[in-house]
Amino acid sequence: MVLPALACADPLPSWENTDTKSRIIEFVETVTDSQSDSFVPAANRIAVFDNDGTLWAEQPVYFQLLFAIDRVRDLADTDPSVADTPALKAAVDGDMGALMSGGDEALIEVVGASHADVSVEDFQASVADWLSTSEHPDTGRRFDEMTYQPMVELLRYLRDEAFETYIVSGGGVDFMRVFSEAAYGISPRNVLGSSLETEYQVKNGTPEIIKKEELFFIDDKAGKPLNIQRTLGARPIMAVGNSDGDYQMLEWTTAGDGPRMGIIVHHTDAEREYAYDRDSHIGRLVDGLDNGPGLGWVIVDMAEDWRRIFTFE
Amino acid sequence: MVLPALACADPLPSWENTDTKSRIIEFVETVTDSQSDSFVPAANRIAVFDNDGTLWAEQPVYFQLLFAIDRVRDLADTDPSVADTPALKAAVDGDMGALMSGGDEALIEVVGASHADVSVEDFQASVADWLSTSEHPDTGRRFDEMTYQPMVELLRYLRDEAFETYIVSGGGVDFMRVFSEAAYGISPRNVLGSSLETEYQVKNGTPEIIKKEELFFIDDKAGKPLNIQRTLGARPIMAVGNSDGDYQMLEWTTAGDGPRMGIIVHHTDAEREYAYDRDSHIGRLVDGLDNGPGLGWVIVDMAEDWRRIFTFE
Repeated sequence: MVLPALACADPLPSWENTDTKSRIIEFVETVTDSQSDSFVPAANRIAVFDNDGTLWAEQPVYFQLLFAIDRVRDLADTDPSVADTPALKAAVDGDMGALMSGGDEALIEVVGASHADVSVEDFQASVADWLSTSEHPDTGRRFDEMTYQPMVELLRYLRDEAFETYIVSGGGVDFMRVFSEAAYGISPRNVLGSSLETEYQVKNGTPEIIKKEELFFIDDKAGKPLNIQRTLGARPIMAVGNSDGDYQMLEWTTAGDGPRMGIIVHHTDAEREYAYDRDSHIGRLVDGLDNGPGLGWVIVDMAEDWRRIFTFE
Repeated sequence: MVLPALACADPLPSWENTDTKSRIIEFVETVTDSQSDSFVPAANRIAVFDNDGTLWAEQPVYFQLLFAIDRVRDLADTDPSVADTPALKAAVDGDMGALMSGGDEALIEVVGASHADVSVEDFQASVADWLSTSEHPDTGRRFDEMTYQPMVELLRYLRDEAFETYIVSGGGVDFMRVFSEAAYGISPRNVLGSSLETEYQVKNGTPEIIKKEELFFIDDKAGKPLNIQRTLGARPIMAVGNSDGDYQMLEWTTAGDGPRMGIIVHHTDAEREYAYDRDSHIGRLVDGLDNGPGLGWVIVDMAEDWRRIFTFE
């Protein structure tokens, strides 16, 4: 069999040749065609991507939570009194069931205790160290190798077409900036996320920015469009997510004038990745499935639409 | 007299050929020279600029406050009960003395009352309308023509040398984004500023982002480095300001490793602009004058260092 020359130029080789792929390519070709009525100038080609469950995996729990638990354990090794609440005790004991039963508040408590009272620089050094020494419990791979190859290709394709690509995630902004460039080609400057309060301190004439335990902003649900507006001052033309935490980001993006694209990654592949949606404790997806198709959003069926899942494969 | 060819290539023609200009050009040439030990890769060439008093004038009061007062008056025309506090009454009466005597709290109250309960889009349309119909009380010029030509040149010079230029101002981020591109060539995405809380609302299926009266963040003093770190995830190599509200931004910037430049614009020209520093109610400058030179900062003497002041001249 002779491959057609066109195959060499396929911008999305890890995507199956399904309707999903066609719709994405058609959108990009339309908005970049200066002869099209739907042409969008490069300055307005903003594409925003959720991270957990959209660009990399999020099972069995958010990777940042695994990092936080490892840090709380390290802290408790030195000072056992750290485990002074049910959530922190569950983290130190590695009792994920007890931890998850505490809901978002328990998770925020663990993140706060493990991410605070440290300079941003030192925190990021500890994240880099953790990434280089930790393995995913199911695959045994580095966490930053558990990125989705089809999405890495989509990000590159969009940038090749003069889109600016951003991460807009409920994950911590300082955490994600450690690997965004290497994993996705996304500059740390193009990462928006949740954040803790910070404090400016000058010690012996040396200024430092110190992370505090209190939350500054949660970049999830309606917080996502608010954070995008506040940070970029513009509405994206493409938004990609996988859970109802991304619903408002897609809703706001696709409600704008002119051509818009909303994409939901639906985790349907229990063999190669994980299958979960309506009843999942992580990445719950109900509204996106119920309303997305009616709003014109593309629902990616990972089992059907993706030839390859992980970058490490 | 024959002008040397070099003059044609002068990147800062509105700057006098003083030591100030030499130091700026030497810094830029050093960090962009790939053969230099002090070379800085383009990705790290971040330059941050205060706006009020640094890129455009700020006397007799912040221009955004004049906008806010005009809006409060418009609101009071329709509903006189708007003027229900001393600060708002002073604004409606045009009593600047009474308003300024209320300090920052009074100003924040006027800004809050005049900027809230409106979508970001509608708010920005009202700013654009105001800019096109208002005149500066002293010069009779449009406010967005009261930009400093030497700074417009410096911004362009830096971008030509692959710097990314940002505004980091105590002014409102939604306000500044209306004119940043036209006035300075700075994309709205590169504008950081103070902000009010916002709310995501969906009415009849149409999502909108509504400005609220409560403050979200004040981008001044220590808030400036915190906002830069949170938004860009990086420390600039150049910071430019004019008041003690910029002190921490310059301090943090110039404390970093490698070549750094801090610049303070000192308002010394009562003839062509305004002369003020230590005792001014706007743009107070004490610490920058006392400590800046010892920290290696460049102090721009507007009367001596600038051949031309305003862009409109």
